[in-house]
Amino acid sequence: MTGPADIQSDRLLRRMQHMAQIGALPNGGVRRLALSAEDQQARALLRQWCSELELQLRIDAWGNLFATLPGRSPELPGVLCGSHLDTQPTGGAFDGVLGVLAGLEVLETIRSHSQQPERSLTLVSWTNEEGARFVPAMLASGAFAGVFDVKTVYGALDQQGIRFEQALESIGYKGSDTVRASEFTAYIELHIEQGPILDQVKQMIGVVEGVQGIRWYDVTVTGRETHAGPTPMGMRVDPIPVACQLIQRLYNELQTFGDQARLTIGQIQTLPGSRNTVPGTLTFSVDLRHPATDTLFRMDQWLNSLIDEYTMGSRCSVTLEPMWYSPPVLFDPVCLETIEYAAASRQLPYRKMVSGAGHDAVYVNRVIPTGMIFIPSNEGISHHEAEYSSPEQVVAGTRVLLDTLWALANPENA
Amino acid sequence: MTGPADIQSDRLLRRMQHMAQIGALPNGGVRRLALSAEDQQARALLRQWCSELELQLRIDAWGNLFATLPGRSPELPGVLCGSHLDTQPTGGAFDGVLGVLAGLEVLETIRSHSQQPERSLTLVSWTNEEGARFVPAMLASGAFAGVFDVKTVYGALDQQGIRFEQALESIGYKGSDTVRASEFTAYIELHIEQGPILDQVKQMIGVVEGVQGIRWYDVTVTGRETHAGPTPMGMRVDPIPVACQLIQRLYNELQTFGDQARLTIGQIQTLPGSRNTVPGTLTFSVDLRHPATDTLFRMDQWLNSLIDEYTMGSRCSVTLEPMWYSPPVLFDPVCLETIEYAAASRQLPYRKMVSGAGHDAVYVNRVIPTGMIFIPSNEGISHHEAEYSSPEQVVAGTRVLLDTLWALANPENA
Repeated sequence: MTGPADIQSDRLLRRMQHMAQIGALPNGGVRRLALSAEDQQARALLRQWCSELELQLRIDAWGNLFATLPGRSPELPGVLCGSHLDTQPTGGAFDGVLGVLAGLEVLETIRSHSQQPERSLTLVSWTNEEGARFVPAMLASGAFAGVFDVKTVYGALDQQGIRFEQALESIGYKGSDTVRASEFTAYIELHIEQGPILDQVKQMIGVVEGVQGIRWYDVTVTGRETHAGPTPMGMRVDPIPVACQLIQRLYNELQTFGDQARLTIGQIQTLPGSRNTVPGTLTFSVDLRHPATDTLFRMDQWLNSLIDEYTMGSRCSVTLEPMWYSPPVLFDPVCLETIEYAAASRQLPYRKMVSGAGHDAVYVNRVIPTGMIFIPSNEGISHHEAEYSSPEQVVAGTRVLLDTLWALANPENA
Repeated sequence: MTGPADIQSDRLLRRMQHMAQIGALPNGGVRRLALSAEDQQARALLRQWCSELELQLRIDAWGNLFATLPGRSPELPGVLCGSHLDTQPTGGAFDGVLGVLAGLEVLETIRSHSQQPERSLTLVSWTNEEGARFVPAMLASGAFAGVFDVKTVYGALDQQGIRFEQALESIGYKGSDTVRASEFTAYIELHIEQGPILDQVKQMIGVVEGVQGIRWYDVTVTGRETHAGPTPMGMRVDPIPVACQLIQRLYNELQTFGDQARLTIGQIQTLPGSRNTVPGTLTFSVDLRHPATDTLFRMDQWLNSLIDEYTMGSRCSVTLEPMWYSPPVLFDPVCLETIEYAAASRQLPYRKMVSGAGHDAVYVNRVIPTGMIFIPSNEGISHHEAEYSSPEQVVAGTRVLLDTLWALANPENA
């Protein structure tokens, strides 16, 4: 069963421009915070397009919006695609919107095809992905996946003290439809990379195999506070050179964990922080990331043993405090193979890669087999008005989404 | 002409205890801010002791208090000694007070000697040495030496917005006596070390040859702000490892400037200072010190060329901003020889050394040949309630002061 040959690029790009008008900022960006008046407008526009296609609309208790194109066997689990319409306070016109409007374009393309797909296809727009208005991010996809309970989601407050539930009701999106994860056999999210890799290596498609795991720590090096003048260098217990040597070793030895390992030291603080006083303590943050659970575990062991070594070998004392752990995510192999096959068939240069940022797909992956498709972000810029992907890149990503969804919705093809 | 054999240790120690009651803190420390009610009380007590000795009292326009024991040849330039009675907000019972009360003890000892000294001897108590109430420190000795003009001194404000002049008048110490530097041939200041050297090497006396020069800088390493997740290590322009390597080289290469060179990095700041963002910039302070002008100049050249090297060799840009320069001070060779001879004659273990902290002697040295005597500070602790020097150390320093002043006041002895 051959799928539709192509999407209508002009229609897709026109819709993206149209959506970018809602909450438009002066320099090409968008401000469309979750459950704001702009979000309400954006949802209304999406619903209008969905109703023109006679899609079956459902809204769940978190304001997530599901629009279904029925398949030939509606009793079979369907295929889900989508992303989100909310943005950062000064966000771009691609983050999230791409996945929603490309999904809509794919459904419209398939609907106009001569043959109905076997499985139903559903487009979803998740509420509050950004975490810019309500913390944490990916709140409503997390609720859908059972990660957050009702109390947590409805009780989340924005900076004005408005509850999530209240904001949901005020724009009329506290829905009563029940949508279960068991209704779906796969979830595919198309998104911009928000990093520089595809742009730098000039590839069109990223087959996203997973999302990095993250471990956060604070390292404190304690010496002895001393006046900068009287005390000779040899009598000082100065945390600065100890910390600098330790940090250098971290950077050097990180390479042993391969190209996918990441180390970020974003904060350094000296106390008392006076220009003419040898600091009593220096504290720095450590952010370690890796897509593989076992490697991230070995990185944790490595950091611990390095700290132990410095604690014993130095006149300063060195302590390590773990702050947070977010485990790596691995997407579904069948979804990924399907995406890879689609990109290869379209002769689009692609690479397998790992996402450094979180997405709704991370939570959905817990309850539905999931895959992600990336297209390049110009210079890796995102969460910024200058966020940009070219029409060619947008269209390429949507074509891969089309072929992937068609293949998943017609499993007898395989 | 043989000098007095010895001071009266008990009298000196009793007076020090008495003075420590004025502004006493619970843990043995003292709070006696310049020109406060406590300072007024301390001055009254000192004046009472001076009048019992029939010393000639003068108060200058800055509240500096001069008490003179006339010599046989009052037309000759006299010998000045002293220090200050003000303290830090939570200061100790030795910083400053030692030099004033030891000077008083020496004058009393000499007064009761069978022979009058040839030159007059004057005790001075300088106003606002600490800089804890009025900034800058050493304000009134600086005014005496012509470093600060009337406007600067009288206009200095404390944290309550009170002018120095107003505070001076309110405790009755805006004097009308003129005291000129030309009246004196030498100034000797006995002080606690406020550093750990004499305590660590178990020596009793420091012959202070000068005060370190200081150069302050800010170094800024500029990279590119990047999210901690998506960007591979090789594509980052991360200022952290560059700064750490640079700081380590500074510590390592400092040794080439000898034991007296000091390097302190008291402040490090990353921007934006977020745990999951590679900093766009890292700025750190550099405090370089050395007692020799030419060496401190070479240290400045070394720092500049190291920064140039990093600016060219790194993907980050590195800039150096000079913030302040305080030239080294060298005390008078005749004063120092006299102190050294006194310590050696008393068979007190002594060492020549350099002060890391500023003192009234720094400014007085510009207009009167000056020397300084240090006694040990227990564990180098100062500007703290735990500041301590033993009775043995206090007495040893006062004996060296006695012999030094006697020798300088009777030049025919040489």
